[in-house]
This record gives sequence, structure tokens and C-alpha cells, in this order.
Amino acid sequence: MTALLGACASAFGGVGRVLRRQKSQLSSTAAPLEAYAELKQQLKEVARLQEIEGILSYDEQVFLAEGSMASRAAQKETLAGVIHDKRTGAAMRAAVDAVRGLDFDDRQVAANVRDAVAAFDKEARKSKELAEREARLESECFVAWKSSREASDFGAFGSSLATMFALKAEVAAATRPELSGVEPYDGALDQFERGMTSARLDSIFAETKAGLAPLLAKVLEKKRAGFDDAVHPALAFDHPGWKDSTDAQAKLSAAVARDMGFDFGKGRFDVSTHPFTGGACPADTRITTRYSDDNWLEGFAGTVHEVGHALYEQGRDTSDDGDGLPSSVALSMGTHESQSLLWERMVLQSRDFWDYAAPLFHEAFPHTRDATPDDFYRAINRVQPGCIRIEADELTPFHVFLRYGVERELFAGSLDVADIPDRWNGEMKTFLDVDVPDDASGALQDIHWSFGAIGYFPSYTLGAIMAAQIFEAATAELPDLAAQIRGGDFAPLRAWLQAKIHAVGSLDASPDDLLRSVAGSGIDPKPFLAYLEAKYAALYDL
Amino acid sequence: MTALLGACASAFGGVGRVLRRQKSQLSSTAAPLEAYAELKQQLKEVARLQEIEGILSYDEQVFLAEGSMASRAAQKETLAGVIHDKRTGAAMRAAVDAVRGLDFDDRQVAANVRDAVAAFDKEARKSKELAEREARLESECFVAWKSSREASDFGAFGSSLATMFALKAEVAAATRPELSGVEPYDGALDQFERGMTSARLDSIFAETKAGLAPLLAKVLEKKRAGFDDAVHPALAFDHPGWKDSTDAQAKLSAAVARDMGFDFGKGRFDVSTHPFTGGACPADTRITTRYSDDNWLEGFAGTVHEVGHALYEQGRDTSDDGDGLPSSVALSMGTHESQSLLWERMVLQSRDFWDYAAPLFHEAFPHTRDATPDDFYRAINRVQPGCIRIEADELTPFHVFLRYGVERELFAGSLDVADIPDRWNGEMKTFLDVDVPDDASGALQDIHWSFGAIGYFPSYTLGAIMAAQIFEAATAELPDLAAQIRGGDFAPLRAWLQAKIHAVGSLDASPDDLLRSVAGSGIDPKPFLAYLEAKYAALYDL
Repeated sequence: MTALLGACASAFGGVGRVLRRQKSQLSSTAAPLEAYAELKQQLKEVARLQEIEGILSYDEQVFLAEGSMASRAAQKETLAGVIHDKRTGAAMRAAVDAVRGLDFDDRQVAANVRDAVAAFDKEARKSKELAEREARLESECFVAWKSSREASDFGAFGSSLATMFALKAEVAAATRPELSGVEPYDGALDQFERGMTSARLDSIFAETKAGLAPLLAKVLEKKRAGFDDAVHPALAFDHPGWKDSTDAQAKLSAAVARDMGFDFGKGRFDVSTHPFTGGACPADTRITTRYSDDNWLEGFAGTVHEVGHALYEQGRDTSDDGDGLPSSVALSMGTHESQSLLWERMVLQSRDFWDYAAPLFHEAFPHTRDATPDDFYRAINRVQPGCIRIEADELTPFHVFLRYGVERELFAGSLDVADIPDRWNGEMKTFLDVDVPDDASGALQDIHWSFGAIGYFPSYTLGAIMAAQIFEAATAELPDLAAQIRGGDFAPLRAWLQAKIHAVGSLDASPDDLLRSVAGSGIDPKPFLAYLEAKYAALYDL
Repeated sequence: MTALLGACASAFGGVGRVLRRQKSQLSSTAAPLEAYAELKQQLKEVARLQEIEGILSYDEQVFLAEGSMASRAAQKETLAGVIHDKRTGAAMRAAVDAVRGLDFDDRQVAANVRDAVAAFDKEARKSKELAEREARLESECFVAWKSSREASDFGAFGSSLATMFALKAEVAAATRPELSGVEPYDGALDQFERGMTSARLDSIFAETKAGLAPLLAKVLEKKRAGFDDAVHPALAFDHPGWKDSTDAQAKLSAAVARDMGFDFGKGRFDVSTHPFTGGACPADTRITTRYSDDNWLEGFAGTVHEVGHALYEQGRDTSDDGDGLPSSVALSMGTHESQSLLWERMVLQSRDFWDYAAPLFHEAFPHTRDATPDDFYRAINRVQPGCIRIEADELTPFHVFLRYGVERELFAGSLDVADIPDRWNGEMKTFLDVDVPDDASGALQDIHWSFGAIGYFPSYTLGAIMAAQIFEAATAELPDLAAQIRGGDFAPLRAWLQAKIHAVGSLDASPDDLLRSVAGSGIDPKPFLAYLEAKYAALYDL
């Protein structure tokens, strides 16, 4: 599932911000504190407009009628132009130049200044025409993807997609000229994972793949040899007890969202084709999910996943030095995904969780009363390679490896969009021994490229790796955590995450820095691999 | 019911716009066509941002969580500032000055230029600070009204309301300095009814009141004398057949909206506390209604009313010389209300309509099968003075006369907000012999003042008067209209209204001009009074 987040801001509750010294006054005519105050004012104005962008996007995906799409594209294009003007105009330039080179003692003030200067320098390299074209294409391409997916015909989406990749390469070339001729794709990656490079990613993914491949092979070998991992009959997706169950699923999902701590007073919970977290800011955070009679797990697990994202948003710093300012925004998409996946995998997919959740299912769906917590645990952790990324189990993140390879080549221009379906279907066969029946279940399944999120997919696997590291740290610091999860008491874990991750926002310069302070080391696949090895060895008696 | 309309634009489908001559080039350096093209570009950019305001307002009233309200106020304030800058900035000033004094032969071009120059001159007199304060207060005051209404305590709303009136007086003084010392309230009126003055309104309302008062007195006398106007038992609001009927009401209302021609592919249909029409533009027009088990008519009639507004919006001109330009916007709020009231009163409250609608009710609500079309007709036209404006029958528009008097005095500072409830309750007793049980059913019942719509109420009665004039013209030009309504064939009436009113937009300089071309004379209460006299003489055997 995806997190499409409206921009906003926060970090730890700052008071009494002071300046220690001033390294340079060359570019500053105002006193440092006044210069910072003016910068804040400029940044907050931009943040409010970006919050509006978040609402327009949410509305577009959840509420907007088909025939209104073109009008929305025009509105977003105009707003994007206004925001671009504000981010790069004379007032912002003056405000940024006035703090440039100043040294601020306070960590939050320093982070605001650091990120504001970097963002200005990057944005100022993008022309207004390019910013407006980007916004317009993102709306148009989404419409093309939607109808192409409905028809399950990749061809119809192809030309829009080619335009999108060409545009994103143009954006990367314009905003990160230093990468041109080296690895322009790193400019796209950096939009989502600050400081991440494809070289580093190659190494992290290689280590992950090297650990996962033999483990997956052992499980599949065991299954072929007849190991019984059959799902309890009541939990089979086609059990008649799930007929007309979507209303009850929605009710149960809302109850769990509440138990996890989602604040319904500052957000919404809707249904959409593609589940996501969006909205405007910590005070207005919105999630969607989808329910199906054919898959009772999708809506429930999707809710837990999106609430993981939403808790990050609702938990950000809203003090005056955070709200609307860069230090309070989520650190990276991988960090965001670490929060959704921590709740989805380390919590919902744990054995402990089902001591809490099985009775709720028994109550809501009487036909499941025979299924024990163990039965639920085994059912939702059954290894079964398949076509669909968001249904993939934690042992099979090969969708992401595949997307990563494809988008890197598309970005470099070494792959033709027309060749994507063949490439896609071929690799699914090679990696997972899965036959893709049609494009809708293949290369068209994910929305991301259609709205310009190129360089985003790696964040999913980075998030999974980080989630394991963070949960290991939480377990060490909260000795009663397992018992709390068994009892449905999620408040201590939520509070720990808020203090360690959500409210810390972007004070750190990179996810590596954040992880070093939270978990003792930078991004490292070992805890993720160790967790999977222990869990699946027990489940599959390896 | 209210129409809160997102700004947008349209008028008759213009092609081959040409310029005949140029009266003056004093203020213009570009050629007239180029000057007009640049003005269009500027205006359309503003229109897109105003469309976004429309979406934010709709979201606020229909979707936004209570705890998100403050963040929305900040977003709207920022956007209002951006719009104000665009409307009054150097680029707009240059574009307006370049066409100022030019004489355009084409009627639509001339209307765009006329209204753009007038709007600029008015808006440029309002400071950015004042525009932002206005936007912020409109959000805050709405929240105050809502909680005050829930508590049914006018006192809590009082100070917000006083601030609102003071602010609106400040706005009127700033934007219409020529009215200061004369009748500043005319500046507020003019926001909703272009060209309308309180002097003219006094005369129209006096004639209306003089015709209505004796008619109402005769009906009430007849009722006191024992005339039987009892409602058919199945149609009584408290008949048990209406229990748990809101879902079926919503379904029936949607079907009628479709029959009337509301385009669901370019809009939405939701539920909200206070029914209204909103959204962004002709391609994205949204209506809301509310359903109650205690009043089967409210949601149904509310839908017909709001669809009347929505057809105006969806029917506006979207050609390049209309879309996003002043010539295509609705002419005035009274004109807008004439469309909703034409459908609500001249259609839904007619005897003909119930030949179409009674069978739909019989099908949806089997307990009504004994009620004939005549029974429905009599039930919904029963005269019964009451506290609630939107439940008031067409013979008792005294709520509007009351609001008009109160807001004029508040505006002039000659009435204290604290005295409103007493004044309100006293006049309701005098005019209608009605006892107001509490503030929620009294002065707090209407949302309008809370979001700054001061000078709006008179539009309701002007709309009723105009609706009668317009329907008289439609009846003359569509000889089969009555039969079409009986058969549920609303397309001819809708097409006639679109051609005569909706697509004509603001080509005319005032509602008087529009009515002269549509109905042969300016605003005139006589057809309204004649219609009521004939109808109620028959209903009450006068």
C-alpha cells in the first residue's frame, strides 16, 4: 500500500530557540533571529499551500467524479505554479540568502535552515513552466493509468508513461545537474530517500536478496515436499461466511484503528480503489482502505498499514518551530514505510497480536469461532508467491527489486516502455515462478508511476528493513511490549514511536542518522533477515 | 436552503470574437486583442484558485473533522491572500489598465472586460490584510455558530457575530467609499445582487408584503373558521411508515435529481447539516441535502431545490471566452435562487408534478399508496406559519423581511447583537403569531451570517419573485410544459432555462436587464402575487 502524503511539518516541541553565533554576515543584512523569523513566515505560507495540494489530491482520489478530472488538473497546475513562484521568488530568495551560512546552535532551527536552503537551491533550478507541466502531467497520467488498468491494456498507458519518465529525467537533470552523466536516477531516488544513492541501494538489496533467496527456496522446497500449511477452512478467502462481509470488516477495521490510536477527530477514514494515507497535516490526516468479500485480510491489514502511516503524520511536531517547517516533516518515504510496516508486520503478523484480534473476529464473524489465534497467525503468514505486490508476503519483496531495475533503465532510456510487460512477466516467472495472467495483475497494478512517484518503490523494502531494526530497539526498551500487544494495549508502543521517530521528524540529515540514534546502527538488513529466518524456520519447521 | 457557490465562469458559446474599434489607446500599449488575451489569462488563473476555494469550502462543510478546522482556517487565509495578490497585483493592474476604456463590439468580450475592470477597482481598494482577516473570520465564525447552535445559546455566538458585522462594514466602507454616509449596506447587498439598493428593495418588499399580508390573513381566517386542510394520514410526518426511511428517501431523491438532469458524472451528491450547492465549476458541481425520519419532505424538496441551483452551475458557458471569465458566472444570488425556487415551487409544488412523483412515492413507501396526487399536492401546500425559514411555505417569506431589517440595523450599528433574540422572537410573534421555543429554532437557525453572507437574505425573496416571472415566460414559450411535467419529462424546461438563463451568465449588467429579455419586464412582484392568489384561492376556497 502507498503513502501519498500532503506536505506539512513538525519535530520535537521546541521552546526558547536561541542563536549562538553567526559564522558569516556576508549575505545577511538583518539580525539572525529576524532573518530566521522571516524565513519561517515564508516557509509556513508555502506549507499552507502544499497542505491545500494534499486536500485536492485526496479529494481527487476519493471523492472526485470522473468528468471533473480535467478541471482538477487545471486547478492543480495553477496552484503548483503559485507554489513554485513562492518557493523560488524574490521574497524567498531574500529570506534564504539572509540565513545562508549562518550557524544556529539550536538543533531544530539549524535543521529548518539546512533544509530550507537545500530545497530552495534545488527548486530554484526548476522553471515555473516545468513545475506546471509536471503537475498537469501527474493528473493526466493518473487518468490514463486508471482507464488502461480497467481495460487491462498496458499499451494504452505506454505513451503517457514514456512522457512521465522523460519529464522526470528532465526534472532530475535540471535540479541535480551534478548527477548528469553520473547517475541521474539518484536525483529521483533522493526525492524520497534523502541521501540515498543507487550504488548504496545495490549493496543493501544484494545483501537482502542473498539472505532471502535461500530462505524462500527452503520454504518452497518444504511446501513441494508436502509440508501442510493449509489455511483453517473458516479463514479461507472463499468460505461462505465472508459473503457480504464488507460492512462488518469496515466496522472491525475502524475499531482496530481506534485501538491503535488513530485520532478520528483530526482526520478521516474512507474507501478508495488504491489504499493510501493523505490529507493536509497532523491536524488533518486521512486514510483510505478497500474491502472485499473475496479477501478478508486485505482491508484489515490495509487499515493497520495505513494507520501506521497516519500515526507518523498525526504524531509530528506542531510547535511553532515545527509546524509548517522542514524539520517536522517525515524524514523519508522509507522511514514512513517503516512505520506502516512495523504495525503491519511486526505487530499484526506477530503471534502475540492474534491473542487480541482473534476474539474480535470471532465476535464480528461467528463462522471463525473455531479458528484459534494460532490458526490466524499461520493463515496470514502462509508463504505463497503471487502476482500482486500488496498481497506479497514478507519473504517475497521481489516486486520491488523488479520495479527498481525497470525504472532505473526507463530513467536512463535503455528500456522501451513497450517492452515493460514482457520484461515484467518474464522476471515474475524467473524469480517467483509465477504466471502473470494480464497487465492489470502485472505491470499496471501499481499507481505510483502514474502520478510521478518514480524512485519510490525502493522505499518499501528499505522500510521493511528499517521496521525490523526499529522494532528490535522497541522490544529492548519496552520489556512488556509482547504482553501489551497480546492485550491490545498499543499506547506504549505508539508513544515510544512518537518520541523516537514521529516527533523527531527531519532533525536528522538522513535515515542512517536517525537509525543510528534509535537502533544503534545505520540501515542494515541483518535484523530483518534474522527475524525472517527465525520466524519461518518455526513456521515451516526448517 | 442556501447556495454557496465556488467561483468559476461561462456564457453563450462564443466563437470568432472580434473587435470593432478602439475608443481610446491612452492606457494601452498592446493591441486590443492582445490586451484582452492577457486579461483572460490573468482572470483564468484567479478563477482556478477560486475554484480551489470552492473545493476547500465544500470539504470543510461536508468532510472535515472537527479537530481539523483550525488548520483549514489557516489554509484558507493563505489562499485568500494569494488570490487577493493576484486580483490586485501589478500583472492584473497592467492587464486591466490595458483594456480600460476600450470598446469591444462582441457582447461577451465586452461583458468580460466590463466586469473585470469593475471587480479590479473594487478589490484593489481592499488591503491584503483585510482580505486575509475576512477569510479567517469566516472560518472561525462558522465554528462559533455551529457550537452555539448545538447549545441553542445565541449569547455564545454574539461576539463573533458582532466582529463579523463590523468587519463587513469595514469591507463595504473600503470597497464602496462612495456609499459611506449614504447607505453602506448597499455595498453588502451589491455583493449578491448587482445593482440592487436598499431603496429599491424597500419598494419591492413593500409591494410584496402589501399583497401577501391580506392573502395570508384570509387563509388564516379560513383555517380558524374550521376549513379542513388536514394532511392525508399517510403523509403526516409522524406516520410510522416513515420510520427508518432515510435510505429510501436518499434513493428516491437521487432518482429525481437524475430525472431533472443533474449530471452525476460532473459532480457529487452528499449529506450535510445544512443543505447547499457548492463545488468548483460547471465540471465539478456538488450538492448536499439532509434526510430525516421526522420530515419526509425536507430531503426530497431540498434535493429538488439544490438541483435547481446545480443545473444553473452545470449549464454555464464553458467556451474559451466563458470558462474562468466573469461573463459566464451566475448573474446574482437572486437569479440563482430563482432557479432553485422555480424547480421547488413552480414545479415540485405544482399539481402537475405529483402525477409524476406520487407513483414514485407509492413504490418507495408502500404506506402512501392510498394518497392520491391531490393528497400530496394539498399536503405540501398546506399553509402553516412556523419558526423555521427553510420550512416556511411560499405565503410566509416574513423570515426574510425580518432578517433584512435586522441585518440592515446591525450593519448601521443601530442594533446590538445581544438584542437579536428578543427582536427576533418578538417579530415572529407579531408577523406570524408564532412562538419561538429556543434560539436554535430562532435567530441561530441560519448559517449565512456565520460565513459572512450579509446582504444575502433578500436574494431569497427576489428569487421567488423572479421564479414566478421566469416560469410564466417558460409556460408561454413551451405549450406542452404542464404535460411534460406530469410525465416527468423535464428536459425541455431544463434546456429552455439553460438557453435563457444558465448559459447567458452575466452578459447582462443586472437581473433587471436579464428579466427584461426573458420575461418582458424587470423585477416585478405582480406575477408572484397573482400566482399565489390564484393558487391559494383554489386551495382554501377563498
